[in-house]
Amino acid sequence: MVTSGKGGVGKSTVSSGLALSLAREGYSVGLLDADIFGPSIPTLFKIEDEARPAHIEKNGKQFMEPFSRLGIKIMSIGFFFDEKQAVIWRGPMVTNVIKQLLVETEWGKLDYLIIDTPPGTGDILITLLQNFYISGAVVVTTPQQMALADVQKATSMLLDKHIGVPILGIIENMSWFTPAKHPDEKYFIFGQGGAQKLSGIFNLPVLAQIPINELICRDCDTGNLADIFDDPNISSAFNQLANAVLNQKKEYQYLHSGK
Amino acid sequence: MVTSGKGGVGKSTVSSGLALSLAREGYSVGLLDADIFGPSIPTLFKIEDEARPAHIEKNGKQFMEPFSRLGIKIMSIGFFFDEKQAVIWRGPMVTNVIKQLLVETEWGKLDYLIIDTPPGTGDILITLLQNFYISGAVVVTTPQQMALADVQKATSMLLDKHIGVPILGIIENMSWFTPAKHPDEKYFIFGQGGAQKLSGIFNLPVLAQIPINELICRDCDTGNLADIFDDPNISSAFNQLANAVLNQKKEYQYLHSGK
Repeated sequence: MVTSGKGGVGKSTVSSGLALSLAREGYSVGLLDADIFGPSIPTLFKIEDEARPAHIEKNGKQFMEPFSRLGIKIMSIGFFFDEKQAVIWRGPMVTNVIKQLLVETEWGKLDYLIIDTPPGTGDILITLLQNFYISGAVVVTTPQQMALADVQKATSMLLDKHIGVPILGIIENMSWFTPAKHPDEKYFIFGQGGAQKLSGIFNLPVLAQIPINELICRDCDTGNLADIFDDPNISSAFNQLANAVLNQKKEYQYLHSGK
Repeated sequence: MVTSGKGGVGKSTVSSGLALSLAREGYSVGLLDADIFGPSIPTLFKIEDEARPAHIEKNGKQFMEPFSRLGIKIMSIGFFFDEKQAVIWRGPMVTNVIKQLLVETEWGKLDYLIIDTPPGTGDILITLLQNFYISGAVVVTTPQQMALADVQKATSMLLDKHIGVPILGIIENMSWFTPAKHPDEKYFIFGQGGAQKLSGIFNLPVLAQIPINELICRDCDTGNLADIFDDPNISSAFNQLANAVLNQKKEYQYLHSGK
């Protein structure tokens, strides 16, 4: 589960990059876009507006077939609505839809299912935490103090002993900007030290810092996600993240086998 | 009402800058932070974590006294919670709280009440539109295609003939970045043309483009909001926005007086 209290910090980009890194390592990966009010995954994977998942029958029950892109099985609420149409639903409806997307998708056998969550600590996050077994969460922030306050709240919720999940660590996105023209310069547009501060408060590791550049935004906007890995800073950040996820699973299995 | 389908585009900064511009013009201005899951207004106006609004009695009813900063009356859900504590509420509770914040605050006589809304088109936005008379909305976006898709949805909702409100126009935030070191350079980190595109789709004016720089983030993070106006690009963008709001009111009054 990729989460953050704050919107616009790059949860969808991190979710997609993580899914892609794991798929490239040979794992079977699913990606669920749970951001009902702002699904970005269809854009990131260039899945057309008009595309709708096929229905298939299995043991007399109807399932939806996820789209497959770059080796990843993808399901998004965005597939069911016109891009321009707002989803004007109150909490209880949202809750049902998110359950349906998880349970009625024909994921097949997966090693990892990455869930891209909406900003905030509202209905969707509560539903996911209360109704499903989530094996781990990654928290995304930017260096900004203002983002930090919101992310801190979401992190507290994830650490709650009643509904919480294990947090693998923190990803800092948009850490600095390096213009292509001045490759030796780093501009800390959104400040510095956000992830570090969060790390100190909650005693969680900073898994990676992802810089920003004009190319990432262009590649994401045009659905050429694989191209962002051309930048060695970006690809190494995502590899660090993927390794943290892979190691956590091992650790988890080790704990269980020891019992 | 300052709104956007997308999180992290700078709604709170725009709301605060607009409130400040209007206050400086001599208007009596209130600012309601309706972002229940990520209130940023307390940080922007350096209102301490521990600060709680005073209760006052008026005609036998209890009201909350807003904080006053830079000539603006401020109320935020953030005043009622610890900064680190997540607000884990489902939709119906959120609905009640937002109504209470609007109705039970002792705003006094205001020329303008600016409402900073949360991202998405969920419970809070629906409640505000269904239960209150909102005289106008400003839509905030960034140049990014991915932001655009979400903002488009929120804009459609605002234009809905049943629950909609008049949209004054579009503000593009983070339009470009100019390093202090290279004042003649413009980096379009988040792409270009987002507001323009939205303007074309909905036939709405682009009210202003706000560039990004390291100082804005620092000033916002440290609660020195007034300092962002030192940058002539920023102050002129906010003046344009304030003028659009002032002109709309005149137009609205004119329409009414003509009837």
